[in-house]
Amino acid sequence: MEQKIQLKESDIPRQWYNLAADLPTPMLPPLGPDGNPVSPDMLAPVFPMNLIEQEVSAERWIDIPEEILNILYRWRPAPLKRAVYLEKFLDTPARIYYKDESYSPPGSHKPNTAVAQAWYNKEFGIKKLTTETGAGQWGSALAFACQIIGLECKVYMVRISFDQKPFRKIMMQVWGANCIASPSNETNAGRKILAEMPDTPGSLGIAISEAIEEAVTDPSGKTRYSLGSVLNHVLLHQTIIGLEAKKQLQMAGEKKPDIVIGCAGGGSNFAGLSFPFVSDKINGADIKIIPVEPTACPTMTRAPFAYDFGDTACTTPLLAMYTLGHAFIPPPIHAGGLRYHGMAPLVCQAIVEGLLEPRAYHQMDSYSAAMTWVKTEGAIPAPETSQALAAVIDEAKKAKEEGKEKVILFNYSGHGLMDLLGYDAFLSGKLVDYELPEEELQKYTKVLENLPKAEMRKSGKW
Amino acid sequence: MEQKIQLKESDIPRQWYNLAADLPTPMLPPLGPDGNPVSPDMLAPVFPMNLIEQEVSAERWIDIPEEILNILYRWRPAPLKRAVYLEKFLDTPARIYYKDESYSPPGSHKPNTAVAQAWYNKEFGIKKLTTETGAGQWGSALAFACQIIGLECKVYMVRISFDQKPFRKIMMQVWGANCIASPSNETNAGRKILAEMPDTPGSLGIAISEAIEEAVTDPSGKTRYSLGSVLNHVLLHQTIIGLEAKKQLQMAGEKKPDIVIGCAGGGSNFAGLSFPFVSDKINGADIKIIPVEPTACPTMTRAPFAYDFGDTACTTPLLAMYTLGHAFIPPPIHAGGLRYHGMAPLVCQAIVEGLLEPRAYHQMDSYSAAMTWVKTEGAIPAPETSQALAAVIDEAKKAKEEGKEKVILFNYSGHGLMDLLGYDAFLSGKLVDYELPEEELQKYTKVLENLPKAEMRKSGKW
Repeated sequence: MEQKIQLKESDIPRQWYNLAADLPTPMLPPLGPDGNPVSPDMLAPVFPMNLIEQEVSAERWIDIPEEILNILYRWRPAPLKRAVYLEKFLDTPARIYYKDESYSPPGSHKPNTAVAQAWYNKEFGIKKLTTETGAGQWGSALAFACQIIGLECKVYMVRISFDQKPFRKIMMQVWGANCIASPSNETNAGRKILAEMPDTPGSLGIAISEAIEEAVTDPSGKTRYSLGSVLNHVLLHQTIIGLEAKKQLQMAGEKKPDIVIGCAGGGSNFAGLSFPFVSDKINGADIKIIPVEPTACPTMTRAPFAYDFGDTACTTPLLAMYTLGHAFIPPPIHAGGLRYHGMAPLVCQAIVEGLLEPRAYHQMDSYSAAMTWVKTEGAIPAPETSQALAAVIDEAKKAKEEGKEKVILFNYSGHGLMDLLGYDAFLSGKLVDYELPEEELQKYTKVLENLPKAEMRKSGKW
Repeated sequence: MEQKIQLKESDIPRQWYNLAADLPTPMLPPLGPDGNPVSPDMLAPVFPMNLIEQEVSAERWIDIPEEILNILYRWRPAPLKRAVYLEKFLDTPARIYYKDESYSPPGSHKPNTAVAQAWYNKEFGIKKLTTETGAGQWGSALAFACQIIGLECKVYMVRISFDQKPFRKIMMQVWGANCIASPSNETNAGRKILAEMPDTPGSLGIAISEAIEEAVTDPSGKTRYSLGSVLNHVLLHQTIIGLEAKKQLQMAGEKKPDIVIGCAGGGSNFAGLSFPFVSDKINGADIKIIPVEPTACPTMTRAPFAYDFGDTACTTPLLAMYTLGHAFIPPPIHAGGLRYHGMAPLVCQAIVEGLLEPRAYHQMDSYSAAMTWVKTEGAIPAPETSQALAAVIDEAKKAKEEGKEKVILFNYSGHGLMDLLGYDAFLSGKLVDYELPEEELQKYTKVLENLPKAEMRKSGKW
């Protein structure tokens, strides 16, 4: 049997899958500052109308433009690989498959939506995209996409990461992006914060505010903002991962996965792999679907379901989601892409419905799992991916205990070559665990009391 | 047409190709300190006998053990890709294909031989491998291979790189290697140098001396030394690249390449891609084969063909090769893998025969070529690979001038994600060019006068 199941370019999925069309109860709408649902027009200064249409679409299948596929072919279809060495090491009857999203030039799944967003913006006549980045995965993916498609790109990078991760910054510059430290002197939001706190390390919330401000205040009207996760259209673009995986599992002779696993920060890589299988589950398939998060930022496993802002600075519409409160500042875990107070509303509604079984792991568990991966499969995973690996190994061990030939599928969302400091901390015994104390959780979620309440709509089928 | 030509694992080449069997004139033998040819036995303290047999083999084809193939399947067969976006940008009638060797876990072609060497050593009963590394590509590849195969690995890393490239060091540690700065206090060679020059930045020559000393002085006899390029058996293991490429070009409907290009430092990635095509050229095919080197280290284009030591410390046998002299210290170009005073004897003999057309490019030209690649194909190439790109772009432009549909094949030997500082220097206008002054060349090659002379054996057929 081949260890890598390769799909031909001519067999790539030609439509994205929209889970919103299949959820048994309708999603709660995003709300504006007045507590009323936001209309597409209200989002127009921030996003181009073609992406807003995708954001609110109720269509199940959305065609992928040929021009976007032509760009994705640089690294897609991504291989589905079988982790035969890990299986052997664990002596498990489980068959473990993974989508290897580390093959994209920036090294993660992020370009799947970065390319699509850049293309739709260009199509709409936009000349420049702004965004924020923390650890740098998203910023480098958007820089890559804008370079390929021919858009200007401005990335506000959280100052502490800007200073500590110079290589991510250089990556973005190589791809032609203008990457600056946030808070900056280029926006009102940045100047205000710098005046109050000249030595602030910055935050994603501040960086989002600056990126949105630059987009909406450009007098030419040719600048828009781009987000790397959370929103419906972002998750939509990632579903190519799961749709490819479905075809590849069939090529490998597997009828269906028994267990689907992905790490979840904003939710996009998890949704990308899992939503086509959530669809199968809605239609009766027996599949356990596990989004994995860090105990340091336990959005899905411990936070309330509520309306909250997507950013710390309260500039976005209110989204119905599991949230630790928009002022929550996650501890400095190495899985920077999982340090987000909320979660994609589509993922959250699937949790409310009982379609998903979220789980949290300690940072230490994720690095132990990563080292098991390194010693067996050989590649060095991203710290975010390692959270998923902890669950994969647990499920494979459980299959052994139960003596069951389970098919486990997970998303290898990226490589860790740009994030080696966490491994250094682990190997030198300096890595620490974080678990959010209950009183901290209570403190941060208190702000939600003053916001509109989110009704938990549940069909009761799962 | 597919942009990526994927070979199935079941179609991977099952034998390596040994050019030594086909060269029209026999190779000059390596010489010992007494000026007499070294016997295989004399190499036994340094290398295991099964690899020494490969080193001196005259067989054309050598079987690849199934166990090695099983490890290579983690990332091989490597895709052959067509650079359609570069072709379009250059508006060239040339069709440009490349083997993407960046997919291996350490990100370069180096693991092809690291895995084979580790496997043969393990098979011979060896417990530990020692090696040296400069920029870190080779050290991380050997660390990866030893981790997978179950050998101890000790890497002597040139001190200045050890200090300036902490991420490469962490990579090796993640793969379980013991990576220390050279010169170290762990060997006589290291202690002697530290006593004389406590602040020395170190050199590859010193690191080689330390690695060999540790291997040959282990009282258990279970330690050997491993080299990442130059030697016949190392080049042999890399020929899987060119053998795969041959099959893939046929799948793409191409009868043969017109031009084959690879960068050459010690010669292994160039030889890996090109030797199967050198064989075709020996048998009459019309192929232009170009090894590319930096003007800063112009071994093939300006140095004499002579017997010389492989290392600065004069501990290796004398090899017949183009050499700038073993005391040559190459300028600090970013393509660290090309900073070597000599060149693989097999590559050199093919040059003497007129089978290859070596060419040198300035560092600045290579970064300009890399940026053209980034803007069209999207990925960030290693600085070594960028030297090959400069030649690829020149040949594609020439094909346009001549209006000829040439087929260009080159080796994309690795990605540049661990080597971004050179890009930073280029983008900020700080990158400098180096060209070896003639008087320097004369000075460094003067030592060769005191060594045995190397006869230039040439059949006169090319």
